[in-house]
Amino acid sequence: MEGYAHRFIYPWITLDYYQGLIYVVVFSITGVLAAGRKDVDLFGVVMLGLITALGGGTIRDVLLDIRVFWVQDFNYVWVGALAAIIAFFGVRNFGLQALYRPLLYLDAVGVALFCVQTIDRVLAMKRGGPVAVLLGIILGIGGGLARDVLAGRPTLLMGREIYATPLLLGGILYVILLKWFEQLPSSLMAVVFMVGFRWAAIRWDLAYPRFLRLGSG
Amino acid sequence: MEGYAHRFIYPWITLDYYQGLIYVVVFSITGVLAAGRKDVDLFGVVMLGLITALGGGTIRDVLLDIRVFWVQDFNYVWVGALAAIIAFFGVRNFGLQALYRPLLYLDAVGVALFCVQTIDRVLAMKRGGPVAVLLGIILGIGGGLARDVLAGRPTLLMGREIYATPLLLGGILYVILLKWFEQLPSSLMAVVFMVGFRWAAIRWDLAYPRFLRLGSG
Amino acid sequence: MEGYAHRFIYPWITLDYYQGLIYVVVFSITGVLAAGRKDVDLFGVVMLGLITALGGGTIRDVLLDIRVFWVQDFNYVWVGALAAIIAFFGVRNFGLQALYRPLLYLDAVGVALFCVQTIDRVLAMKRGGPVAVLLGIILGIGGGLARDVLAGRPTLLMGREIYATPLLLGGILYVILLKWFEQLPSSLMAVVFMVGFRWAAIRWDLAYPRFLRLGSG
Repeated sequence: MEGYAHRFIYPWITLDYYQGLIYVVVFSITGVLAAGRKDVDLFGVVMLGLITALGGGTIRDVLLDIRVFWVQDFNYVWVGALAAIIAFFGVRNFGLQALYRPLLYLDAVGVALFCVQTIDRVLAMKRGGPVAVLLGIILGIGGGLARDVLAGRPTLLMGREIYATPLLLGGILYVILLKWFEQLPSSLMAVVFMVGFRWAAIRWDLAYPRFLRLGSG
Repeated sequence: MEGYAHRFIYPWITLDYYQGLIYVVVFSITGVLAAGRKDVDLFGVVMLGLITALGGGTIRDVLLDIRVFWVQDFNYVWVGALAAIIAFFGVRNFGLQALYRPLLYLDAVGVALFCVQTIDRVLAMKRGGPVAVLLGIILGIGGGLARDVLAGRPTLLMGREIYATPLLLGGILYVILLKWFEQLPSSLMAVVFMVGFRWAAIRWDLAYPRFLRLGSG
Repeated sequence: MEGYAHRFIYPWITLDYYQGLIYVVVFSITGVLAAGRKDVDLFGVVMLGLITALGGGTIRDVLLDIRVFWVQDFNYVWVGALAAIIAFFGVRNFGLQALYRPLLYLDAVGVALFCVQTIDRVLAMKRGGPVAVLLGIILGIGGGLARDVLAGRPTLLMGREIYATPLLLGGILYVILLKWFEQLPSSLMAVVFMVGFRWAAIRWDLAYPRFLRLGSG
């Protein structure tokens, strides 16, 4: 894969394979929990988990016309499916629905790491900063949108929750920081910004101010 | 197309072009029947039929980064559209909605044949068994999911119906059988297994046992 | 890009870059207006606008396996996002929902121009007339379908509105005309036909005659 030579330069980047797997685990579990009130069977649950976990990255890879990451390395599917199965029995037997909100904090870390990784990859393909940031956002929301549509829930875009805005602003910040700093400190700052912003949004139920919202809400 | 050299080795594989067309006809008709209560016009009906019939294979080809099968050979579109038009007038004038459930038996045959064919193709591309089976499932459910979402119905994944599990188990069976047997007997056994399982599920309204389902159903 | 040599032959074809941008502006605005009753925030509105404006062309490019147009030239995204932001504040502060219906007249022009352009491009890739016309239709309805699904509205296909039929008939007309006439007069006739048909459908709320519709409507 182009753009992965730098994987060997900074120590933490060598971790990015495991970051990807962590992202898949967390997303797959939130997928299961999000769908968890209806009479869905194990097969449907695993498919929803996988679609949530792999959907965003799949759309990203198709748009970039590179090999889809889980076709390239099927471990992503194994790990995502296993996480979904464990989550299924957790919800089934212990009623772990209450874990959904706490898990969003983990989700924020997973998506921030994977978003920065996507931006790196797109930049290494010389596609330019704006394309990179937009693909980082698509990576972040693609799987969740597909999950909501297939599960028959209102999508993220229709709600007041601040989910993708931290990725947008953090992604722009990252591209700017890269002009002045090395990759490692830039990415750390961007991830901290994305996670902090998203955590604050979850903690205090932040929404856009009223003049930036339509409707009578 | 890679992976099609073997088309000429086993006699029944030379039939796979016609199998593909039969699959398209059956899926297109079930698409029309599934949408058939609302005030949809002929154009919408044909589009729904085509999306049902071609959707799964399109997603498969995009994920594999090979040329989309109906761009390659437009006969699939002609045949699917013609089947949808005939189904439209059948439903319109003779109220053939009652045919929906019987047609599911035919659908099971079409999808089993096309699923095994997809697994063959992916294996011939040296992508490995797990990728092949997952793409076989995606082929089987992709068109139906797109149809349900566009028609505003609850999707397959949210219901209790056993639809894709025979493809999963039959696909795994097929990949295992190929280690011991030739392609022809392996594929016959896998297709018989998939069709038999699915027919049983339709006939006796099978669902996953309760401990493998969420919800209060 | 293949198929663009002829861009320099006919004067009006040199305009097609601006046509594309106009299409994006109009579609992005209709996307915003269509979603405009719910409590959506600026981020969601811009994403909906972009999905409406870029979705059809994205699907077209993925199916043709050519580089996605807005990855190639990010100006489409800038222009679409800017249009969505302006439309957001227009709706927010001046209640421009009433503009939705009038804007459909502009939408008809944008989609007709972009559809003919798509047919040209596919024909130049030697994919044949039927593929070209079908991709022109997909271009025309893809973004709107994605918008409706994500916004939780009934999709175009489920309604009585005549939207894509002018693209189908006009596209067929265009491919036939090209056998007798030069590109410029052919495309002008096709665009006039598509726009006229669609304008008539909007003006007089045309629907398919009853024998070409299902349901009790």
